[in-house]
Amino acid sequence: MTISRRAFVSTLAAVFGGEALPWIYAAERPSALRINPDRLREGLEGLSRYGRPEGGNFSDGVTRTGFSDADVAGRNYVMQRMRAFGLELRVDAAGNILGSRPGSEAGLKTILFGSHIDSVPSGGNFDGDLGSMSAIEVMQTLMEKGVVTRHPLQMAIWVDEEDTFAGSAAAAGLLQPADLALQHNNISVADGIRRLGGDPAKLADARLSPENLQCYLELHIEQGGNLYKAKVPIGVVQGIVCIDRYEVEIRGFANHAGTTPMNERHNALLAAARLIETVQDVVTREPGRQVGTVGRLQVFPNAPNVVPGRVEHSIELRDLSAEKIARLGDEIRTAAQEIARQTGTEISFQRVEHHAGADANPEIQTKIEAAAAALGLKTLRLPSGAGHDAQMIAKVCPIGMIFVPSIEGISHSPRESTSWQDCANGANVLLHTILLLDQA
Amino acid sequence: MTISRRAFVSTLAAVFGGEALPWIYAAERPSALRINPDRLREGLEGLSRYGRPEGGNFSDGVTRTGFSDADVAGRNYVMQRMRAFGLELRVDAAGNILGSRPGSEAGLKTILFGSHIDSVPSGGNFDGDLGSMSAIEVMQTLMEKGVVTRHPLQMAIWVDEEDTFAGSAAAAGLLQPADLALQHNNISVADGIRRLGGDPAKLADARLSPENLQCYLELHIEQGGNLYKAKVPIGVVQGIVCIDRYEVEIRGFANHAGTTPMNERHNALLAAARLIETVQDVVTREPGRQVGTVGRLQVFPNAPNVVPGRVEHSIELRDLSAEKIARLGDEIRTAAQEIARQTGTEISFQRVEHHAGADANPEIQTKIEAAAAALGLKTLRLPSGAGHDAQMIAKVCPIGMIFVPSIEGISHSPRESTSWQDCANGANVLLHTILLLDQA
Repeated sequence: MTISRRAFVSTLAAVFGGEALPWIYAAERPSALRINPDRLREGLEGLSRYGRPEGGNFSDGVTRTGFSDADVAGRNYVMQRMRAFGLELRVDAAGNILGSRPGSEAGLKTILFGSHIDSVPSGGNFDGDLGSMSAIEVMQTLMEKGVVTRHPLQMAIWVDEEDTFAGSAAAAGLLQPADLALQHNNISVADGIRRLGGDPAKLADARLSPENLQCYLELHIEQGGNLYKAKVPIGVVQGIVCIDRYEVEIRGFANHAGTTPMNERHNALLAAARLIETVQDVVTREPGRQVGTVGRLQVFPNAPNVVPGRVEHSIELRDLSAEKIARLGDEIRTAAQEIARQTGTEISFQRVEHHAGADANPEIQTKIEAAAAALGLKTLRLPSGAGHDAQMIAKVCPIGMIFVPSIEGISHSPRESTSWQDCANGANVLLHTILLLDQA
Repeated sequence: MTISRRAFVSTLAAVFGGEALPWIYAAERPSALRINPDRLREGLEGLSRYGRPEGGNFSDGVTRTGFSDADVAGRNYVMQRMRAFGLELRVDAAGNILGSRPGSEAGLKTILFGSHIDSVPSGGNFDGDLGSMSAIEVMQTLMEKGVVTRHPLQMAIWVDEEDTFAGSAAAAGLLQPADLALQHNNISVADGIRRLGGDPAKLADARLSPENLQCYLELHIEQGGNLYKAKVPIGVVQGIVCIDRYEVEIRGFANHAGTTPMNERHNALLAAARLIETVQDVVTREPGRQVGTVGRLQVFPNAPNVVPGRVEHSIELRDLSAEKIARLGDEIRTAAQEIARQTGTEISFQRVEHHAGADANPEIQTKIEAAAAALGLKTLRLPSGAGHDAQMIAKVCPIGMIFVPSIEGISHSPRESTSWQDCANGANVLLHTILLLDQA
């Protein structure tokens, strides 16, 4: 004889009364589980107060740079919310906030998920925050509905994603002693980690072990306009791009702007202008999604009446293919020598950063698609042009990332925004991807 | 009966002894008068200590920006040297230091000469300093040799030439109330003038009257390479160029450098690069001595991983013809609108400065040539590409300028230099031009 689920649930209710409600929900229909969208929104709005411009409101964004007072205050808020529903919580040696929940089956590896709550200066309220508050919301939903997964679950809020990736790099064993000495927001990474309750002398303790990890999932806003333009609510990330960053120094000769004839100048800013145009040309003259940016530039002595004697600027190249950005870098470097010759300047290049990209695990991509489909949500596969903690954790275990649309593709700006419906969709896809992976 | 000069001088010496030496020199041969080159060098080296980089020496240049501590200290040094030989001295309402000596004939107008001692940041020890210390040296030479001119003589050390021309502008009645509120080196011009002992409420008192002025002379380094290349020790300035300065604001949209495709960017720095190239094109595509410079540029938010959302930069145009630079400015402005269209940015122009040029008086040019010829020094007529206090004073009386070579044409740099022989030559030409004008 088979008993229908409906009859089974009715019996449970009759025998145990209201105390069995969580089990009833769980037993009823795991696929019907949903996060609480109002509580998720309340969490995001609550967090947005830490680092908000004085006298501003939610739409004025935040400056909550890693290790800052606002970061400390925001972390305290987050930990308070985690403790409020009884999640077991600790801060590791790198300062990462970890919340854990045991699984029902011994010997299974942990499913890890999370994001970050630090922001760029004048950033928005969704970058990192959505993935962090959704991780909390997923934990809270599972606990209040009494759903116990087979695998242990762990959520992480990583330290200083926007500048140094210190937290996820430490977790992946990639944070070097030299990185600890880096100054960021007028504080060394080592002192910053201490400030957040970590212990830089014991970083090895923060390291994740591949033997204990099933996979890592991260929900994040896209930060680009692909999903928004395509009107697709869920992005399935194929991989995270590689990044090469160069520092360029152009040495000309500073001289009087009134008395130095045009043909006798060694104008470092004219050379920089030609190099900026060259970056644009080299990056756009072949098909593909590669991007190249001169985002930072400084002129010396920077006076209206002095021919610029020196310019320093960054060049950043990104693509899924490390080989492609290495080749584009070489092309730009070669063109720079011709510009140096034309302008009577010297141009030197230094590659100061290289972030290897990371591929998202194909099975996890499929699970995300299945979770979204069960929720009636369309998906689009796309690369991540931005760096994420997930690319660090990819050194330790398979990763997957879920994107939700950024309105008009705006990011790293107070105007960064995602609809509350899309936020809730993303959190629900995170929840159900975890549940599907838990069953696998 | 005529008595020879030699016999006259012998008689004077016999009758009056050593006390009559100044009169003897003066009576003997005015044309044989020479400034003291060692004392001139000592004055320049002495002044160079105020604003010198800590631990540096003469060749490390100075930062003696107008109204700064170094400016105040340098002015005190200069006034001490003027007082040391008994020159009558006062500071006018604009803060200008004036040293006066009466003439022997009533009713004649004053011959005025001078320069400035403020510098650009990281400037050299000759720009302004040479004309200032030579003016003192000329006064001291005349006084110690007992030469009394027919015309009253006045020397001036003008306030803040390098940035606002505040001193000479006030003397010419050109300093506007709005100019007093301008911030320069973290101090308003009004407060700066107070700091130097002036009184901005009584600026009218500092105004020179055409009825009292014969002419104004200024000795200055060329700040360009024409005399140096031609190996000619004395330049006779034909006029001072007009200057138009624009402030340009380019508004694009700051966005994530990794997630914003190349064709969806509104990159303000790419627009600026094209505009810098346009300034170069427009200025160099027709013959002439006109120059155009983008010397100051700032990028916002100026981070390697953010597409620049805003750029502000200067454009400065100079030529003897005001019409020409106005036309070049219009051409650049027109081209900018096409660049704005290409790059999806908005570009706005504001003309923030217009310095009318000034013609040097032809008779004074001839006198400078005569003075140089009598000293056995070759001359070259040339325009001044740099602005000078003389162009302000040109509103009040005829002006003349004497240039000496800048080694390799270097200026506004610690490497700015002029040989001590050329310094002495310039001061002697200034002295003898004054004496020739005094006889006219």
